[in-house]
Amino acid sequence: MCGIVGIVSKRDVNLQLYDALTILQHRGQDAAGIVTCEDGRMSQQKANGLVQDVFRTRHMQRLVGSMGIGHVRYPTAGSSGPALAQPFYVNSPYGIALAHNGNLTNADKLSEDLFKTDLRHVNTDSDSEVLLNVFAHELQSQGKLIPTPDDMFASVTGVHKRVTGGYAVVVLIANYGLLAFRDPNGIRPLVYGKRETEEGTEYMVASESVALDVLGFDLIDDVAPGEAIYITDEGELHRRQCADNPRLRPCIFEHVYFARPDSIMDGISVYKARLRQGEKLADKILRERPNHDIDVVIPIPDSSRVAGQALAQKLGVKFREGLVKNRYIGRTFIMPGQQQRKKSVRQKLNPIELEFKGKNVLLVDDSIVRGTTCQQIIQMARDAGAKKVYFASAAPAVKFPNVYGIDMPTATELIAHGRTDEEVCREIGADWLIYQNLEDLIAASAEGNNKVTEFDCAVFTGEYCAGDVTQEYLDKLAAMRNDSAKTGKKSNKQMELPIGLHNGALS
Amino acid sequence: MCGIVGIVSKRDVNLQLYDALTILQHRGQDAAGIVTCEDGRMSQQKANGLVQDVFRTRHMQRLVGSMGIGHVRYPTAGSSGPALAQPFYVNSPYGIALAHNGNLTNADKLSEDLFKTDLRHVNTDSDSEVLLNVFAHELQSQGKLIPTPDDMFASVTGVHKRVTGGYAVVVLIANYGLLAFRDPNGIRPLVYGKRETEEGTEYMVASESVALDVLGFDLIDDVAPGEAIYITDEGELHRRQCADNPRLRPCIFEHVYFARPDSIMDGISVYKARLRQGEKLADKILRERPNHDIDVVIPIPDSSRVAGQALAQKLGVKFREGLVKNRYIGRTFIMPGQQQRKKSVRQKLNPIELEFKGKNVLLVDDSIVRGTTCQQIIQMARDAGAKKVYFASAAPAVKFPNVYGIDMPTATELIAHGRTDEEVCREIGADWLIYQNLEDLIAASAEGNNKVTEFDCAVFTGEYCAGDVTQEYLDKLAAMRNDSAKTGKKSNKQMELPIGLHNGALS
Amino acid sequence: MCGIVGIVSKRDVNLQLYDALTILQHRGQDAAGIVTCEDGRMSQQKANGLVQDVFRTRHMQRLVGSMGIGHVRYPTAGSSGPALAQPFYVNSPYGIALAHNGNLTNADKLSEDLFKTDLRHVNTDSDSEVLLNVFAHELQSQGKLIPTPDDMFASVTGVHKRVTGGYAVVVLIANYGLLAFRDPNGIRPLVYGKRETEEGTEYMVASESVALDVLGFDLIDDVAPGEAIYITDEGELHRRQCADNPRLRPCIFEHVYFARPDSIMDGISVYKARLRQGEKLADKILRERPNHDIDVVIPIPDSSRVAGQALAQKLGVKFREGLVKNRYIGRTFIMPGQQQRKKSVRQKLNPIELEFKGKNVLLVDDSIVRGTTCQQIIQMARDAGAKKVYFASAAPAVKFPNVYGIDMPTATELIAHGRTDEEVCREIGADWLIYQNLEDLIAASAEGNNKVTEFDCAVFTGEYCAGDVTQEYLDKLAAMRNDSAKTGKKSNKQMELPIGLHNGALS
Amino acid sequence: MCGIVGIVSKRDVNLQLYDALTILQHRGQDAAGIVTCEDGRMSQQKANGLVQDVFRTRHMQRLVGSMGIGHVRYPTAGSSGPALAQPFYVNSPYGIALAHNGNLTNADKLSEDLFKTDLRHVNTDSDSEVLLNVFAHELQSQGKLIPTPDDMFASVTGVHKRVTGGYAVVVLIANYGLLAFRDPNGIRPLVYGKRETEEGTEYMVASESVALDVLGFDLIDDVAPGEAIYITDEGELHRRQCADNPRLRPCIFEHVYFARPDSIMDGISVYKARLRQGEKLADKILRERPNHDIDVVIPIPDSSRVAGQALAQKLGVKFREGLVKNRYIGRTFIMPGQQQRKKSVRQKLNPIELEFKGKNVLLVDDSIVRGTTCQQIIQMARDAGAKKVYFASAAPAVKFPNVYGIDMPTATELIAHGRTDEEVCREIGADWLIYQNLEDLIAASAEGNNKVTEFDCAVFTGEYCAGDVTQEYLDKLAAMRNDSAKTGKKSNKQMELPIGLHNGALS
Repeated sequence: MCGIVGIVSKRDVNLQLYDALTILQHRGQDAAGIVTCEDGRMSQQKANGLVQDVFRTRHMQRLVGSMGIGHVRYPTAGSSGPALAQPFYVNSPYGIALAHNGNLTNADKLSEDLFKTDLRHVNTDSDSEVLLNVFAHELQSQGKLIPTPDDMFASVTGVHKRVTGGYAVVVLIANYGLLAFRDPNGIRPLVYGKRETEEGTEYMVASESVALDVLGFDLIDDVAPGEAIYITDEGELHRRQCADNPRLRPCIFEHVYFARPDSIMDGISVYKARLRQGEKLADKILRERPNHDIDVVIPIPDSSRVAGQALAQKLGVKFREGLVKNRYIGRTFIMPGQQQRKKSVRQKLNPIELEFKGKNVLLVDDSIVRGTTCQQIIQMARDAGAKKVYFASAAPAVKFPNVYGIDMPTATELIAHGRTDEEVCREIGADWLIYQNLEDLIAASAEGNNKVTEFDCAVFTGEYCAGDVTQEYLDKLAAMRNDSAKTGKKSNKQMELPIGLHNGALS
Repeated sequence: MCGIVGIVSKRDVNLQLYDALTILQHRGQDAAGIVTCEDGRMSQQKANGLVQDVFRTRHMQRLVGSMGIGHVRYPTAGSSGPALAQPFYVNSPYGIALAHNGNLTNADKLSEDLFKTDLRHVNTDSDSEVLLNVFAHELQSQGKLIPTPDDMFASVTGVHKRVTGGYAVVVLIANYGLLAFRDPNGIRPLVYGKRETEEGTEYMVASESVALDVLGFDLIDDVAPGEAIYITDEGELHRRQCADNPRLRPCIFEHVYFARPDSIMDGISVYKARLRQGEKLADKILRERPNHDIDVVIPIPDSSRVAGQALAQKLGVKFREGLVKNRYIGRTFIMPGQQQRKKSVRQKLNPIELEFKGKNVLLVDDSIVRGTTCQQIIQMARDAGAKKVYFASAAPAVKFPNVYGIDMPTATELIAHGRTDEEVCREIGADWLIYQNLEDLIAASAEGNNKVTEFDCAVFTGEYCAGDVTQEYLDKLAAMRNDSAKTGKKSNKQMELPIGLHNGALS
Repeated sequence: MCGIVGIVSKRDVNLQLYDALTILQHRGQDAAGIVTCEDGRMSQQKANGLVQDVFRTRHMQRLVGSMGIGHVRYPTAGSSGPALAQPFYVNSPYGIALAHNGNLTNADKLSEDLFKTDLRHVNTDSDSEVLLNVFAHELQSQGKLIPTPDDMFASVTGVHKRVTGGYAVVVLIANYGLLAFRDPNGIRPLVYGKRETEEGTEYMVASESVALDVLGFDLIDDVAPGEAIYITDEGELHRRQCADNPRLRPCIFEHVYFARPDSIMDGISVYKARLRQGEKLADKILRERPNHDIDVVIPIPDSSRVAGQALAQKLGVKFREGLVKNRYIGRTFIMPGQQQRKKSVRQKLNPIELEFKGKNVLLVDDSIVRGTTCQQIIQMARDAGAKKVYFASAAPAVKFPNVYGIDMPTATELIAHGRTDEEVCREIGADWLIYQNLEDLIAASAEGNNKVTEFDCAVFTGEYCAGDVTQEYLDKLAAMRNDSAKTGKKSNKQMELPIGLHNGALS
Repeated sequence: MCGIVGIVSKRDVNLQLYDALTILQHRGQDAAGIVTCEDGRMSQQKANGLVQDVFRTRHMQRLVGSMGIGHVRYPTAGSSGPALAQPFYVNSPYGIALAHNGNLTNADKLSEDLFKTDLRHVNTDSDSEVLLNVFAHELQSQGKLIPTPDDMFASVTGVHKRVTGGYAVVVLIANYGLLAFRDPNGIRPLVYGKRETEEGTEYMVASESVALDVLGFDLIDDVAPGEAIYITDEGELHRRQCADNPRLRPCIFEHVYFARPDSIMDGISVYKARLRQGEKLADKILRERPNHDIDVVIPIPDSSRVAGQALAQKLGVKFREGLVKNRYIGRTFIMPGQQQRKKSVRQKLNPIELEFKGKNVLLVDDSIVRGTTCQQIIQMARDAGAKKVYFASAAPAVKFPNVYGIDMPTATELIAHGRTDEEVCREIGADWLIYQNLEDLIAASAEGNNKVTEFDCAVFTGEYCAGDVTQEYLDKLAAMRNDSAKTGKKSNKQMELPIGLHNGALS
């Protein structure tokens, strides 16, 4: 998962982009980048690390200009190999920088085509570089010295035709403006808003509405699936539907786990969706075991707290912070002559014995992926004296990999892949396992906005809504993950020392 | 506030000390340090920053030895001037390293005496360096080539006689062992435990029991007020009462705010104490307004969550995560030609509108100190549409500075200093303000262990239990804080470049 | 001045490029960069600083591939604005990286044309980025999926047609090979050589032959003016004359100052040229003052030592190391409340009093530019007790700026600009000033290779051999230097934070 | 070898100490450190690296005070194990910082005694820490609250009694002043001087007079063997002979190699001594081969240039810069899967073929130690076409290790150890080898000051003038060197992470 932002302001945007990336940091902690533009000249800073570490005063001072884009990155399984810090840049045509959230499922084919038709060289494994070059090629094909909004939209139409996958994109065109668009299924989120100032109207696009809130922008709308919006450097807004058959099918995992609860996506309050997830899960529990003996509901911090509160309330059971999270996670040192020690779950979560001893506890998490942490927490609960340990997942069983931008293990690593609920229950060592029903999960979201009737639920169903996802593609994904696992996260030699254009001293 | 740890192990302690400091990181995020000892030779790494930033692999590799101490630092108002990273070291006698949590109220006088009686030069403003030299002087006075446990305890007795204030201390004596002691009032916490291994028994002392838990040590006991424990390098444990009139009066603010909820201090579960704080606060609300119109209880994350849950439950009112905390706080850049922008509370906390709109909300915090954040949050609640905004503080009104190791503003900066509850209510803009009663706060803690009857409650009462705190001393404290405020945190020129002994390259 | 290198090897070139840049470091100490290529993918590291500081083990490990290019940079007055670390890169067509030594005198015009004809955006003030895009445009115009040597040479021909100035260039084309060429006047030097290995023949191009020597390559030839050589990734060498009217006019300042004495340039040994400079200067002295009273000849270390030895020998006067150079130059700190202290010449050069006291000394330097250092050294000689201080310059009076890649002050900063030799003598405070005659300087070089009959001597004559240098251009150059002087070397905001393509974390 | 400096000024000394260390940098490039004192408080910065890298603006800003000391370090074979950055510090008595040049030959014994008599713990292998504690013990024994100059001198007398070896020392006593002294044989150099300012007289002590020259101090005198000088913080100078039988026997290797030629040591101009070395060597050549066929004299840069010029002149043979030195030395990278490549001599020195081809060349170096570089250069000369290669050493054959502060290989590593001159000549591959005679070397120095009649010449004779050097000690030295060689320079775990007192963040 990644977070993106773009602003066309009436004054320098560097600090605003920085603040926005800080707010979107939960969408990606691995790398961050900003590109700004002033008088047709672009300035860039990007590196691995948290936003607060990537940008220093000396960088901010050089990131001049009143329009710009930013990105926070989470390594995406869907991209072939280790992703690189964004935005990416090409100088032809015009000077273009691009950042995106999502994943293209036909990146390899596109990369080949780009070279053959346009001699465009793609130097990394990043699908973002591919996407940038596809767009650049389309825009160049318009053949204009000064591109118009129509040229921009025509180029996006061209992109939609060639590209498959999920993508929410911000593009900065030197001298001209900021373009933002979303794939024809609207899988990845994107919103935009405006702010009135004395100097005129300013616009902002971002992955989540909370970034608009905090920066004082008023939400105008979600970018519709397939739609593009274009804000000229002078602050004029244009919007156009650029896809033939757009159909909104947003990723439901945003509501389960990724998005901040205070965000509104496609008209749905994430917070309310989670409350409803909790309530529906409570209903299921009451249906299945009307006479349950749960003494206390304990959330696994932090993401399941909202659903947990609603669940507990509906059950009429005490809700308690029985697991204390340590905010400070130390690194794992490799000492000579010592074997590598795994950081135990215990260093991240510690039980309050009082809340476990002699009780039947219901642990709540947003979902179960690999199941290993889950297993350790259940054991921890037993060690703390719990009589019975029940486990509730606010999402259904995760059985399939994600190919639209979420870093999810391959099928074989998913504990629910090829296992019944009972088998998963046994594996994780719970006395009872309750998964949310898929229809309930969908309802929890859909009730927030009756215009949204479909969601991308592929991790639960294996049905990939944007099409074109073959077993061969999934196998390749799995192989890449395995390679990467074997050789360590930084295995790819290009990862840390890619070609950098006009890249001066950063320190 | 600071965190301290000491371990005498059967194998290298570097990783264990690192993990322990990570767990104690909430007690101090400003600086960290470790000293280990092997074959009589000490190795040290300390620097400003979080534990995860201070210690790199190259440092860990050099921190050899099976006994050592560690420290995390929070800048302490009580110490005269900016505190320095600990542990501190003197080479005479024996080679001694020391780290402490707390504050001495007669440090200036001690520093003078040390020079006159022993020609000992104190090179910093840190009371820890003073404490180390007082101890070193006492130990040297025993005049032994090979000091015995008795010599250690006699030296601690000497320290208690000369020193006033609150202090929990770990001391590493090269070649000989680890000593730990606590002031005669037991103001600052200190516990110890053991772990059986195939090679023999290992011991650990730490500020909080949670560090023992996570590292797999079993809690033996709190170090009693005035008591010292001494573990020889061979792993033999000795303990002795070294004060004339020890009297347990632990700092109650640990239960309100500082300690991790999963810690047990002087036999009292911090978690349970906080639950009781919430319940007693609910009782007071019900007493004062039996027909209150509270619709929802919303905690100000993270420290008030436990008390808030108990409070809501007892009131029979919904408890909701209505404020979302952003875990990633960006820095504040100073841009040329721009005025410095204050980071708004909004960037740290964002309201879920749903939980505020049209409702009477009760916000709960652990305490109110300056009142400024509090005021902004109340305004934020109103902006989000709250009908009425009530505010509950799990602690009584904070009216006096702390002199025993908590970094608290001076009296004049405290919103409740010289103001009635009504006046504070008006200042912060609440519709109703409910402070915990002091007797209720004490009861909430005391009910956890009926042997603990007194607490240091000076921030509420102005009565400093260790004595010797004159108005002159408080004025000096205030003056230092003001100087420091004026010139910025790093005003003192010695702060960053103090004398370093045998200090090689750190990078 | 800059240094460039390119290698097509049978094994990894990273270490070889590193070593070559170390040997060429005297040509530029400001920045360094390397790009290598493996399997069509490019890797890059470049930054400000010395070669030994720019490249760390982690960078070298990522610089994979058996062909690559490298660059060391000296800030060039001739380039419009602060130059940036090279090589530069564009991804279209093919993926091309380029580094060059020299300066284009029509860069602004080219930059404009590039945008209009090709929509190519030039994001920096560097003429290297312009040169790269001109070349890329020409190569793209060939329209080949797989470019042939003929395509390469046709593109170089195109470059020569559009570009004016002095330039020696290395270009790396992903997947295809290494191209090197020199401007039609051969102003900047470029040589190439080969090395036979068991795996086949390896080729290397470099600014100076000494780099070939040290790496064990045998010099084949200089790249002729206007000529290009192309080495395919498989190690096949092609060469072709690509200019219409090539005419060798190498920069004579290489022989005076820049080049290492052990280099052979266009068949001329720099060392021998300097010996001859000394001899001819001695002849002039003997002509002008047959009964001179010089007691000792003292070189100003290090560049004038060779000429000085020959001069002293021919005069029959003692040659002595009377000035000791300190190899370690400290930085200049700006302390608060103190005015900036200039580092005196004294910290770099210290006189051996014995060699000055009571003597008539002849100081020898390679040339006189601003005259300020010169003046201080003469004063230092007097302070050391010299009876008379004579000053000899191995080059004629420098009166005009350089526009072909040497960082030379503007005309008004040159002490000899608009002054007679007598006036310069008075300014610097010498008792006698002897400049080399221009015909002697030319002869000293030309005698090394009778096929070289012309040299670029513009700094002495103001005649710019590549044409097109208008007073307007010189005024613009001067203005830029002045701006830069006013605001400090790092005034340009793009300098340190330019757009970087796919630029990951460098640290 | 190391360099030391101390200044008592009327204004901040940080910049002056920095400049002085830069000038003394040739005496040690491994580490650097400064301690200053203001109002009784000491500030310190020390680290591995060159002076220009160790001190940053932030460090200089904190190094406040008008008196201070500085040190540059070369790893000393004589110290047991890897030396540490100096100055060192103890807080008792008074606060004392010390830096020294030299080596103690009874450090182990002293370290033991210190613990037994004074419980003083020495935490490193550095003899400087031992020396500091011996001095501190002696000063403490005077028992004064305010120590007088007499107390200082009495302490130095005590040091001389206990310590054997060669040592030149600067000591900073907080609040009181600067002390400097030299061992009773005056093996290591030390001079002092003064500068008159409007605020009063300032004093400076330094290893070499050139530091005084450059900073504008006038040389007063050498510190005599056994003598101490004490400058109070108010700028009052005291001097006293503190040894019973002082006898000047300075290290003659300073004149051969270490000292800057522009220094005056014990009244002897190093430059003149080297000229005389060259002349005497010429005499020997003319004696041995009156009809020698030497065509050219070529120095091995940089240290043999002065002697070489005098030699050539006396022989009446051309003197030529036939070997070009590369000032920029790259690092040696260890690449995975590649064997470590030795940097060849070729990367540091490159021959000018012209000066070798077909000629009989006489190469001149200051001395021959291991002989390996020498061998490679001779081969290089032959490869460049030399007819015959003769080799002259300005010093006699080096046959014994140094124990007074010069990092010299152990006996078995010295090429001349146990070999005749003929055997050495054969080993290095020369056609003729000429060593200076010892009496000539001594005469070359002694002629500079007829009061100096003895020198420490132990590396040539094996006679250690300070006594107490047993075969056992030499064996231990050799063993340590071998250990260190085996495990790499940074083998000792204390080297990089020693205990640091009050050591704050350095970065």
